[in-house]
Amino acid sequence: MKITTIAFDADDTLWENEVYYRRMRARFVDLLAPYVDPQTAGRRLDALEIDNVHWYGYGIKSFTLSMIETALELSDGKIGGEVIRAILGFGREMHAHPVEVFDGVEPVLAELKQGYTLALVTKGDLLEQGRKVQRSGLARYFDRVEIVHEKNAQGYRELMERHRIPPAAFLMVGNSLRSDILPVIEIGAQAVYVPYEHTWSLESAEIDPHQHHFYEIETLRQLPSLLAELERRRSTD
Amino acid sequence: MKITTIAFDADDTLWENEVYYRRMRARFVDLLAPYVDPQTAGRRLDALEIDNVHWYGYGIKSFTLSMIETALELSDGKIGGEVIRAILGFGREMHAHPVEVFDGVEPVLAELKQGYTLALVTKGDLLEQGRKVQRSGLARYFDRVEIVHEKNAQGYRELMERHRIPPAAFLMVGNSLRSDILPVIEIGAQAVYVPYEHTWSLESAEIDPHQHHFYEIETLRQLPSLLAELERRRSTD
Repeated sequence: MKITTIAFDADDTLWENEVYYRRMRARFVDLLAPYVDPQTAGRRLDALEIDNVHWYGYGIKSFTLSMIETALELSDGKIGGEVIRAILGFGREMHAHPVEVFDGVEPVLAELKQGYTLALVTKGDLLEQGRKVQRSGLARYFDRVEIVHEKNAQGYRELMERHRIPPAAFLMVGNSLRSDILPVIEIGAQAVYVPYEHTWSLESAEIDPHQHHFYEIETLRQLPSLLAELERRRSTD
Repeated sequence: MKITTIAFDADDTLWENEVYYRRMRARFVDLLAPYVDPQTAGRRLDALEIDNVHWYGYGIKSFTLSMIETALELSDGKIGGEVIRAILGFGREMHAHPVEVFDGVEPVLAELKQGYTLALVTKGDLLEQGRKVQRSGLARYFDRVEIVHEKNAQGYRELMERHRIPPAAFLMVGNSLRSDILPVIEIGAQAVYVPYEHTWSLESAEIDPHQHHFYEIETLRQLPSLLAELERRRSTD
């Protein structure tokens, strides 16, 4: 079946994201240096962040609250107001950060829009993700923007039913095996993995390449030729 | 035109919400009593909360961050770790709070579902609002749940276009003049206002009843008979 809809993940697929969290984590660890060694501080923050996803979800507000909680815990409540204020400032800085779209993304979207319906499917905070889409300048390429709390098989299935897209006609492109690739191939749609060096550990997954079939490219720039190749194979089948 | 779709606001229309924020605000003010008088603390929190909507959006995480910021500011940074920890606890408590559906809501939804497409349209945090919908036990009555960042005319227009509902066939029910009533009648759809005693001041609006036409009922229980009356009027027109 011909692919009609290409859906893109946003963070770390179209633009930088995780790297800002890493930089802020480094500044946070420095801030706590009077109380605790860097490794302990970093590890505790990582662990609390994952624990807190259940209550707080993803995004900057959640990360800010986890930094505050880590600071209180590791200083045994002795942290001063100026440290908490600095952490609130870190969050504000992240909220205000410009969106840095990866090189080559825009021409690829412009080209693919000629032949496909394009969607953006991102998980996280509604306000934060919506703001990034606007600031990216890429909104006009997408026929549909979906911001969801989690990207799982059930969510992708509902999305396709809602838009009456047969799974075989749907292709998802992203940097997260856990969110963009595995749930998509699980329901019989296609997926293109574009690995990124700064992918959050929570987004990785153990996979056996012999068991799961998906495509992998090094950069989004290779997507049009991959699609052309898939189309060629289909028409000669 | 016959009304085919009834959309409901959620917070303070189907279930309690604002009252939890008020109770937490009272506890927060008590917590700051050693530093600042109650009136100053409450007013500053209210103001910061509204200022912060721009960056943080709506919801519990945003409220928690505003409480922390207020505490730092009004104590001149002298606040101790135990106060910040208590505020984080307030947020957790709110996240874990059960959903208290208003009396009479469920039978009304069950009855209306026989004759109409029902939707839920709520603004705020994706995770928090999604969790409340699940916990309310009301999800099964809704053909569609939409969680948006803001409810404005543009958003309602897009929603109707997406689902191919002519505005004249759409009726919105809610407790907020600003979010549920004015933007809906602005685009030619119909609205039913169900005032609630604990409506957040940000949700109120100055309106001239001679200029804007919408319906008002005291409780959701009156909705089926209002709809029956509208249907009678239509068929005798």
